[in-house]
Amino acid sequence: MIEKVSVGLLGLGTVGSGVVRMIEANQEELQHKVGCPVHVEKILVKSLDKARQVEVDESLLTTNAEEIVDNPNIDVVIEVIGGIDLAKSYILKALSNKKHVVTANKDLMALHGHELLAAANENGCDIYYEASVAGGIPILRGLVDGLASDRITKMMGIVNGTTNFILTKMSKGEGAYDDVLKEAQELGFAEADPTSDVEGLDAARKMVILGTLGFSMPLTLEDVSVKGISQVDLEDIEYSKQLGYTIKLIGIAQRDNGRVELSVQPTLLPNSHPLAAVNDEYNAVYVYGEAVGETMFYGPGAGQLPTATSVVSDLVAVVRNMRLGVNGKTIVSPQFERELKADEEIQAKYFLRFYVKDEAGAFTKISSLFAEHNISLEQLIQQPVKDKDMAEVVMVTHNASKKDYNQVYNRLRDLDVVFEVKSHYRVEGE
Amino acid sequence: MIEKVSVGLLGLGTVGSGVVRMIEANQEELQHKVGCPVHVEKILVKSLDKARQVEVDESLLTTNAEEIVDNPNIDVVIEVIGGIDLAKSYILKALSNKKHVVTANKDLMALHGHELLAAANENGCDIYYEASVAGGIPILRGLVDGLASDRITKMMGIVNGTTNFILTKMSKGEGAYDDVLKEAQELGFAEADPTSDVEGLDAARKMVILGTLGFSMPLTLEDVSVKGISQVDLEDIEYSKQLGYTIKLIGIAQRDNGRVELSVQPTLLPNSHPLAAVNDEYNAVYVYGEAVGETMFYGPGAGQLPTATSVVSDLVAVVRNMRLGVNGKTIVSPQFERELKADEEIQAKYFLRFYVKDEAGAFTKISSLFAEHNISLEQLIQQPVKDKDMAEVVMVTHNASKKDYNQVYNRLRDLDVVFEVKSHYRVEGE
Repeated sequence: MIEKVSVGLLGLGTVGSGVVRMIEANQEELQHKVGCPVHVEKILVKSLDKARQVEVDESLLTTNAEEIVDNPNIDVVIEVIGGIDLAKSYILKALSNKKHVVTANKDLMALHGHELLAAANENGCDIYYEASVAGGIPILRGLVDGLASDRITKMMGIVNGTTNFILTKMSKGEGAYDDVLKEAQELGFAEADPTSDVEGLDAARKMVILGTLGFSMPLTLEDVSVKGISQVDLEDIEYSKQLGYTIKLIGIAQRDNGRVELSVQPTLLPNSHPLAAVNDEYNAVYVYGEAVGETMFYGPGAGQLPTATSVVSDLVAVVRNMRLGVNGKTIVSPQFERELKADEEIQAKYFLRFYVKDEAGAFTKISSLFAEHNISLEQLIQQPVKDKDMAEVVMVTHNASKKDYNQVYNRLRDLDVVFEVKSHYRVEGE
Repeated sequence: MIEKVSVGLLGLGTVGSGVVRMIEANQEELQHKVGCPVHVEKILVKSLDKARQVEVDESLLTTNAEEIVDNPNIDVVIEVIGGIDLAKSYILKALSNKKHVVTANKDLMALHGHELLAAANENGCDIYYEASVAGGIPILRGLVDGLASDRITKMMGIVNGTTNFILTKMSKGEGAYDDVLKEAQELGFAEADPTSDVEGLDAARKMVILGTLGFSMPLTLEDVSVKGISQVDLEDIEYSKQLGYTIKLIGIAQRDNGRVELSVQPTLLPNSHPLAAVNDEYNAVYVYGEAVGETMFYGPGAGQLPTATSVVSDLVAVVRNMRLGVNGKTIVSPQFERELKADEEIQAKYFLRFYVKDEAGAFTKISSLFAEHNISLEQLIQQPVKDKDMAEVVMVTHNASKKDYNQVYNRLRDLDVVFEVKSHYRVEGE
């Protein structure tokens, strides 16, 4: 039986510092849970003489990754440097040296997860990555263990804290997109270059990881249809409120008859839906299972200690496996072939806002267009635009296939009585 | 390596039928997840010729429990008969015969969990009981694995669907307590004798299980201070709304400096609190961890298939352990001694509603009483009662110790200017 466990840490930034802090502060509880001491043996840093967020013995620091990934004394490598290429090569090296791996790297897992899992499997090693999706929320465990017996049919996630912060502020009337984004940047909830967050790419990566696990299918980033929040304006939010909805950036992973849709887009949810009440920088994943029905996992999506909680809980799992001698035996490879839905198979309701000429027959042209594609309307607001010869129309459709909807949307934009289609969003959760 | 797993089922009621259905319907996925077939070998029923909720081969049925707990072909016993004494003796017998156990029995786990866990440990067997708390929500796994690295300081749970259904209906103005309870009984959300649910006992049992796991401390049912919802009236709900609160039956498990409080009572939560939006028969457990901050697990608290999901997910865990040869090695005995908070250490805010004489100086007497015990007031509504010489007072205090509060409450009832203290509740979540 293993008597102590040595950890090598790649990275001592925000999350890495949190990991060091938690391993120290909770050492007694950790030992009780895993049955032996766990200590940090070596830490990879960029520079030896930088100010640190946590006090560490200088002798632990190194700028040479080989001192960790090739170090025979190290049992588990925790990767929190982020990025793709270096992180990947370190992890592959560590696995080939029979070290178990814990990573918080969503970009890496979304892009190269299948390869890394295969490498872990070949080497009889564990690789855990709970922190890669929704920070402190133990959602991957929820899917893999908690709902192990169920067939998951749909997941809807608020999996990006930055965009949820921005949309929450906009909803509360605290400013338009640009102002609120600036505030988020000042508070550290958004990066200097916010593209990856606000354009939905970050959320897309998390949905790939969730979909792959939840549906047991090797999905890729190219499978996700992505639309960000930078076009959402206050009028959209106001009209949504009037109609009883809240706009959120929602990642959707849906499976019907073995075929899957993955998407990320601003989405209207009924105010009574539990996801509609997930505010500020919080994350949540709503899971529909055939048997369990609807469950939700809610919590902090980022932050030093929440993310470190997931990383160290993964470490606990790895050490328990070491003590039991069962590492590498819990990886289950995807069961199903990758099968994606065609646009005809993707059903949803849509919200549209557009300007039309204020003339006789204009609305007939529009309603005929929708009728022609068998899309019926559930809610409608039409009102004149002050001092202009036009009206603003807001509508919510009944369910339509994405194929039909896209045709209507394109034809609507070309109609002579339509000035501009200002915005259109998916509607979910009803 | 084990090539197939045989299950003995104790009980074929609602949950038992769901378990049979799920094992059959999801057999292919189950096999993929555990690596071998899993089948039901024998089922204990009360009577052989009763109508069933699920089709089963008659040869599987028996009225003799020994054919399951003493059956050498059976590897795992699933107990879903409920009740205490028989269930306990069957489980102990199964464990002594080296059979692993999955149970959905909250009453049994709350009363005899420590003894059953010890027996499992002695026999090198697993005992899993996810379904005993909050039906389909994988909350026990969330505590034990997902937040394994964190120090949990507080849990607040809506862990009884019946009372949440009743309070939700009352909140929506759909009737007073008695009417709504009757409706719940007709819909099957409440038992013919609803005492255990409405008086908080059911919730108390679940809080014992949550507290024991979350705080790693052997807590007992006697440690829970319990108050039910049968005294909640529509006026309380109306005033709570005016003040920005929602009334829920909340189980609280709180730890400070190694000392614990367990309680269940109607509690006012700010409308913005995620638990306030948990409606109808849904359950949710809000968990505060030192590192992770606030997380919430939401889902169905009961029902055939949600509960069966938890039971069969437990079965998956047991079978994985069997395949890996690590059964009985994952039970961690409580780390800390049982230490309960004294009333002086329990801090909370309180809501009070009472009638006072409409005379000069009445309010001064009342406010001096609170001041004397250092309890200050946060919100106050006083209004005359029509056609009577009295006023109705509603107040929310700032934080006070339970000891101080109880003294004030008792003295308030005896004040000559007070006619009646109509209701008083704890206020949490701020």
